[in-house]
Amino acid sequence: MQVMKNRNNKKKCVVLLSGGLDSSTLLYLVIKKKYLPTCLIFDYGQKHKKEIESAKKIAKSVKVKYFLVKTNFPWKGSALVDNKINIPENRLFNDKKIPSTYVPARNIIFLSYAVSLAEVIGAKYIFYGANQIDYSGYPDCRNNFIKKFQNIINVGTKSAVENKKIKLVAPLINFSKSEIVKLAHKLNVPLKYTWSCYKGTKKPCGVCDACKLRNEGFRNAKLKDFYD
Amino acid sequence: MQVMKNRNNKKKCVVLLSGGLDSSTLLYLVIKKKYLPTCLIFDYGQKHKKEIESAKKIAKSVKVKYFLVKTNFPWKGSALVDNKINIPENRLFNDKKIPSTYVPARNIIFLSYAVSLAEVIGAKYIFYGANQIDYSGYPDCRNNFIKKFQNIINVGTKSAVENKKIKLVAPLINFSKSEIVKLAHKLNVPLKYTWSCYKGTKKPCGVCDACKLRNEGFRNAKLKDFYD
Repeated sequence: MQVMKNRNNKKKCVVLLSGGLDSSTLLYLVIKKKYLPTCLIFDYGQKHKKEIESAKKIAKSVKVKYFLVKTNFPWKGSALVDNKINIPENRLFNDKKIPSTYVPARNIIFLSYAVSLAEVIGAKYIFYGANQIDYSGYPDCRNNFIKKFQNIINVGTKSAVENKKIKLVAPLINFSKSEIVKLAHKLNVPLKYTWSCYKGTKKPCGVCDACKLRNEGFRNAKLKDFYD
Repeated sequence: MQVMKNRNNKKKCVVLLSGGLDSSTLLYLVIKKKYLPTCLIFDYGQKHKKEIESAKKIAKSVKVKYFLVKTNFPWKGSALVDNKINIPENRLFNDKKIPSTYVPARNIIFLSYAVSLAEVIGAKYIFYGANQIDYSGYPDCRNNFIKKFQNIINVGTKSAVENKKIKLVAPLINFSKSEIVKLAHKLNVPLKYTWSCYKGTKKPCGVCDACKLRNEGFRNAKLKDFYD
């Protein structure tokens, strides 16, 4: 287990990077704040690989190291990994039902891998692009969840036993989508490399939750998206 | 997301199965208690595949369904996944240092997958063979960790939002190794299918932590292991 010792060691962090607008903006924000990120990208059997390619491009655009974890959800259970379940279109956000795009416990799994990586490289922070304002209703994108996950890190890791703190941070948690869009604009995030759409079509579909939230964010921010 | 509806639905559970003595005994215990288990086995890039084959044999021996998750730890960081780190031999257990066989956050990751599976099949319980008495000092095998992980399930899942409780249970947590050996004996666990050794040699090495703990357990229980 090699831990690079340098004066910036305190700024070492892991960034969960999906290639979407939120996590890409988060990566650019973290770099702006002089952190030293290592990105974590997942190939988890999602229906399309476009977001994986996007995530790689975003990481490369700022020349940071990334790891790609390959895994699978053999029990399916989500429209994002099961070809038999269609991606919902033009869904209304006013019902409290969790949509079929929820991948059971996926973000808990992703965060767990982030903890693993953080332990190995000696990172002090894990940055998670979760957002509890304009989102699809996922339970693992809320403040309370993040607090509880921090407790896991604090008791269940070698780092904790050795008093090396790893802090889970979600700087965008209380941002509206339009605020994220404005931040992306300010940080010069290359929108052309980002991919939010749940489908892998040539252009974003415009009707899935991810597209609708993104489009509304750009509309409210009065800014133009790459695909507009 | 199909959930089988039957009168025994309340007894549906997920069992984390490594093919070692503890998790195999746990599976047999759970069946004895009339639960309906689905097993979860991991191919995570461990140095040898013998434990995966053992886990499959154990699941088949009681005719229960299992899922195999394939994944990797590209950042290594443990003697169990990194060929450059030797498995420690004849280690003393009186130091409090966490050994190099600790795979960073591995059990947090495994439990997260178990939550995912439990959500999809509608299981009410996750059985985890952790043991805080005769163990190698892993932080993710302690009671407090299990409590904190339960909190994650309670706030971070769709099941929680829908008031479908999933309970994480570690029935062997306070068992000594010799008590587990006695239980395995009582439940007729087929020892010949189990594999505890950290190495993939033909016979267990006898000198790694896992072998030493197992051998001592059998010695204290005054019972014979398959390999004796």
